[in-house]
Amino acid sequence: MGVSIPHPLSSLSVEETNQARDTVLKLHPGAIVDFRTIYLLEPPKLEVKLFLELEHNGSVTDDTPRPARLAQVRYDVIGGLKAAEYHESVIDVIACKRVGHTIVGSAHHAGLTVFEFRKVVECVKASNLFQEKLQTIRLPPGFELVIEPWPYGAPDQDDGDTRFFQALCFARDTASGNPDANFYAYPLPLVPIIDARKNELVRIDEPATGGEHDPLVGRTHKVGLVDHCRGAEYVPELLLSGTREDLKPLTVQQPEGPSFTISDGNLVEWQKWRMRVTFNPREGAVLHDICYDGRNVLYRLSISDMTVPYADPRAPFHRKQAFDFGDGGLGHAVNNLTLGCDCLGVIKYFDGVLTGADGSAEITKNVICLHEQDNGINWKHTNWRTRRAVVTRRRELVVQFIITLANYEYIFAFKFDQAAGITVEARATGIVSVVNIDEGKTAPWGNVVSQGALAQNHQHMFCVRIDPAVDGHQNTLIQEESLPVRRDKRTNPNGNYYEVRQTPITTSVGIDLAPFNNRVFKVQNLSKRNPVSGNRVGYKITAPATQLLLADPNSIQAQRALFAQHHLWVTKYKDDELYAGGRHTLQSRREIGGVADAAARNDDILNEDIVVWTVFGLTHNPRIEDWPVMPVEILQVHITPSDFFTQNPALDVPSAADNGSKSVSAQCCSASDADLAAAE
Amino acid sequence: MGVSIPHPLSSLSVEETNQARDTVLKLHPGAIVDFRTIYLLEPPKLEVKLFLELEHNGSVTDDTPRPARLAQVRYDVIGGLKAAEYHESVIDVIACKRVGHTIVGSAHHAGLTVFEFRKVVECVKASNLFQEKLQTIRLPPGFELVIEPWPYGAPDQDDGDTRFFQALCFARDTASGNPDANFYAYPLPLVPIIDARKNELVRIDEPATGGEHDPLVGRTHKVGLVDHCRGAEYVPELLLSGTREDLKPLTVQQPEGPSFTISDGNLVEWQKWRMRVTFNPREGAVLHDICYDGRNVLYRLSISDMTVPYADPRAPFHRKQAFDFGDGGLGHAVNNLTLGCDCLGVIKYFDGVLTGADGSAEITKNVICLHEQDNGINWKHTNWRTRRAVVTRRRELVVQFIITLANYEYIFAFKFDQAAGITVEARATGIVSVVNIDEGKTAPWGNVVSQGALAQNHQHMFCVRIDPAVDGHQNTLIQEESLPVRRDKRTNPNGNYYEVRQTPITTSVGIDLAPFNNRVFKVQNLSKRNPVSGNRVGYKITAPATQLLLADPNSIQAQRALFAQHHLWVTKYKDDELYAGGRHTLQSRREIGGVADAAARNDDILNEDIVVWTVFGLTHNPRIEDWPVMPVEILQVHITPSDFFTQNPALDVPSAADNGSKSVSAQCCSASDADLAAAE
Repeated sequence: MGVSIPHPLSSLSVEETNQARDTVLKLHPGAIVDFRTIYLLEPPKLEVKLFLELEHNGSVTDDTPRPARLAQVRYDVIGGLKAAEYHESVIDVIACKRVGHTIVGSAHHAGLTVFEFRKVVECVKASNLFQEKLQTIRLPPGFELVIEPWPYGAPDQDDGDTRFFQALCFARDTASGNPDANFYAYPLPLVPIIDARKNELVRIDEPATGGEHDPLVGRTHKVGLVDHCRGAEYVPELLLSGTREDLKPLTVQQPEGPSFTISDGNLVEWQKWRMRVTFNPREGAVLHDICYDGRNVLYRLSISDMTVPYADPRAPFHRKQAFDFGDGGLGHAVNNLTLGCDCLGVIKYFDGVLTGADGSAEITKNVICLHEQDNGINWKHTNWRTRRAVVTRRRELVVQFIITLANYEYIFAFKFDQAAGITVEARATGIVSVVNIDEGKTAPWGNVVSQGALAQNHQHMFCVRIDPAVDGHQNTLIQEESLPVRRDKRTNPNGNYYEVRQTPITTSVGIDLAPFNNRVFKVQNLSKRNPVSGNRVGYKITAPATQLLLADPNSIQAQRALFAQHHLWVTKYKDDELYAGGRHTLQSRREIGGVADAAARNDDILNEDIVVWTVFGLTHNPRIEDWPVMPVEILQVHITPSDFFTQNPALDVPSAADNGSKSVSAQCCSASDADLAAAE
Repeated sequence: MGVSIPHPLSSLSVEETNQARDTVLKLHPGAIVDFRTIYLLEPPKLEVKLFLELEHNGSVTDDTPRPARLAQVRYDVIGGLKAAEYHESVIDVIACKRVGHTIVGSAHHAGLTVFEFRKVVECVKASNLFQEKLQTIRLPPGFELVIEPWPYGAPDQDDGDTRFFQALCFARDTASGNPDANFYAYPLPLVPIIDARKNELVRIDEPATGGEHDPLVGRTHKVGLVDHCRGAEYVPELLLSGTREDLKPLTVQQPEGPSFTISDGNLVEWQKWRMRVTFNPREGAVLHDICYDGRNVLYRLSISDMTVPYADPRAPFHRKQAFDFGDGGLGHAVNNLTLGCDCLGVIKYFDGVLTGADGSAEITKNVICLHEQDNGINWKHTNWRTRRAVVTRRRELVVQFIITLANYEYIFAFKFDQAAGITVEARATGIVSVVNIDEGKTAPWGNVVSQGALAQNHQHMFCVRIDPAVDGHQNTLIQEESLPVRRDKRTNPNGNYYEVRQTPITTSVGIDLAPFNNRVFKVQNLSKRNPVSGNRVGYKITAPATQLLLADPNSIQAQRALFAQHHLWVTKYKDDELYAGGRHTLQSRREIGGVADAAARNDDILNEDIVVWTVFGLTHNPRIEDWPVMPVEILQVHITPSDFFTQNPALDVPSAADNGSKSVSAQCCSASDADLAAAE
């Protein structure tokens, strides 16, 4: 019987998800239940640890005790006295019973769903008020309205706990007959506000469309306001000058297949690495139980949160602040990846399970991809005496997922290398968010990237959650700095010495980076010393030293994203404490239950089960080259061994033999029909 | 006649080099001339600009006036009253006459040569004093001495202007019979000092071998001091446990050849980019006349300088401070690259010209490689309404060279992408420098990476020289910061606004980065506005915000490397002002004629021909995983268009079609014989 139960860390299956739904439905007879999301509530780490120890020893049997399989189910109950009540239930999907239940009530808003977004669009379209307003705009002939639903950001005090959404509006030129003509090039200064509970449009904000010296508020636009906008297409068939024709194919061949293996549905093994790759609709790809050569490195690795605040001071643009993970989870925003398009080589895809509006499980195809790639030289040394060069290339295993949030996309990747390092990468791409600007004007809060389209300055603040298990679960965070030392006869007679100072962090806290001190953070296991160096075994975390949140600390933008006030947080592990920005970000006025609150517990974290949260960002003042679709901006966090091993872990990687590479002679390069020389 | 003259920016040919040598020899009849280096003295920019304008217009003819072809020849004249005199001559290799001549004299030391290094080794071996000292060490049976010549670093005051070299000594275990057994694992605490002019060993420094609480000076080692050292091999045939066997081949195929063309020997054209790629023995690969889509971007791009100061306070380790470009040029340190080993795909190699001890030209094969690579997704957008995804991959053109400096290697690459961006990359690899440490001890100035081997803390400080030509040669450097603004009813009512402040730099100066202000630098052409945004056309320079030089500012280490005291310098262009650390770094006591001196001219640089020097570094406190050969540490500088174009320049890159990628099913992954599914 035990053997048929999935691994404790496996995502809920379709059957388990449906079981959770059915159990909830039975608990609310006669009511209408609107399901928002159903996914695994990870078992307590204590239970998982016991199981993983047995698993690592190869001693799991049918009789091995397993943690309960729990589903967290979030749903609205409609009916009764209140219009709708937001519930969170925890369902044991094997026992088919509820083991936890909270009525969240009005303290927080439930995460949004795509079904709500659809209703927003319908509601705006159906509004007479909106249609009248649209008439006053006078779209050019052949243009049609496009409505882009957005979260409402932070509500005003007067808004109370009403559940609002806003919509940004654009116009699409239908002349080409192509449904992918880029409507973002024609932004409309209408921001309809919808009361989601009443399903009605409550007002239409009309942001100013002026420039630098114009008023910040008040409708300023004139009739025919998109007449001066210009098309900006990106789908290849609409490019006026076509696509370039001189790019020759470059393909990746793996004739013997990939070097990874996958078993048990989600257990990935590659080049001494071993990990579980799962998907959930809140965080996307989540990695668990990451081990190298049989040794624990991380218990869990995930993108915890992000927020994108916009810096245009004109109302209602202060409400453009998305929490792309927290506001509704990214489940329905995840791209279904396609072969040969998003990656090269041999690709393994993982599917995910989402829930429909009725709570029934739906498979979403290819939401995570797994492949190998080459990333240049990994190590090289030439003995200049013998002229013998030994060089190995750097192969990486990439676990990737991509999300689309209306106009914008993020490509997240976890990359594992052969030197036992992990890189967490975020690539920002997609279409920058634009608003209408009067002809010929410019503004200090953005850049005119296309006639009539002002791309507003904004920031992307990311948080990666690293739950370490460096040779065990009792770890300590060490801050290390390299500091100048004055010349001094006794300790630094020649002035060339510098001090490497290590400071253990003893209490949960938020800390900033100090790149000019070469401040780095190491997660060490204080109970284990490296047999050669004598240092504690550890892993180093190196994150980009980027600008923190710029909004005034007293602004609602900043208060909602307290996690973005420090570069790094370290907290004591607590089950189900996963989201840096808090559990409920939609329409929040302040971050509650996020990493700032976790740190504020002032827990003793010396030699404890700790969690490290690393925050980095991109202050994005758009350049015109970001339009209409921006080339990727790349940010990386590196997690690398530091006296964890007793030598370079990639030393045993075979030297690169000839990998089908060819040399090309200068003559043939200058001819158009490239005639390749054979490999030397 | 004109047509047979090489392009003004071409490196000297073998014939031109020999012509320069012969001309010099005729000028010094009867003397012994020891040649150090001969290479192109680039023509004055004024002359090159005129030529390039014609070239870009396609109007160069046989009669087009061309700058003189000049060789800079550096050599010692031996004979006469003085033992040796260092000369620098400039030879017109077409007219066969000298047009410039300096006797450098004792003010500076001539750059070192490999021939001198060979003499150092011979001199140490021949020294009775050294042989006696070696006896007292008592190497284990079967171990032989290995001598590693190094520059002397900065001389003591007492050293006067004597030309010294030092040597680090190691022992090689010959038991395996393998000449590539890693001798660095057996460091000897003997540092013989050689007077290069007299060709004699003047003394042997014996650094302390103790640990944290031991004396900093004085011989402390005991007989049999390498007995506690342990082998640390990296050549595959010496690895005790062999190489890993589960790495399956991953090859890059370019069935239609590369997308680049090469003409005129060094003119590279690729994806709207056009540039000249040449080699010189001081800087390695140098790029000139970099244009995109017919528009000037950079006049010249090069790695200008670097220094590697070590932080062990014990004499004589303060003299471990290499200037790997300045001390002798990197000509003889450049790796001759081999197919399929250093790069994948279709590779074009460029040869270089070096000079032998007699000044005769020698071809050095394959010193620069050129190839294309894939670097993931470049841009993507999915229209969530239609589910249409458009995605393009990021192809890059890589110009790469690799240098080996005794134990250590650097991989430098200039990468061009399809979005008109340039990345300058340095990868540090090779074997970290180690010294002997007594058994069981540790030290605060390094890490014991192998029994008896202490890898000393050190820094790598790099300087990339960027000579911009953004739509012309009159450019201005703008500092841009994103700064918080207090909430304020009038300008920032919601607290979400931040200010983007641009400050033109008007006078040559050194400036530091300020990542928490998102400080970036843009090179703008003030006379040209972007037709859409109204901003000045520009290119942005983004360098890593790393720690600057740590040595006490009054130390000789710091004084020799003034360039490393700021992250960025901007100076007014001056012909032949190329080296951040100055022309003569070998055995210098202070940086002279480097970028600090250039900036100190306080030139007006608003709307002038400017040069930007970007400095970044790696504070390298070795971890044990860096031993015996370290996995690459990667640093990158990005040069990206900023309102230079009117849209994403990569918009016309064709969407990635299926590039031979295959999907793999989970079942087959778990089997050992991977059975690939066909591409969907």
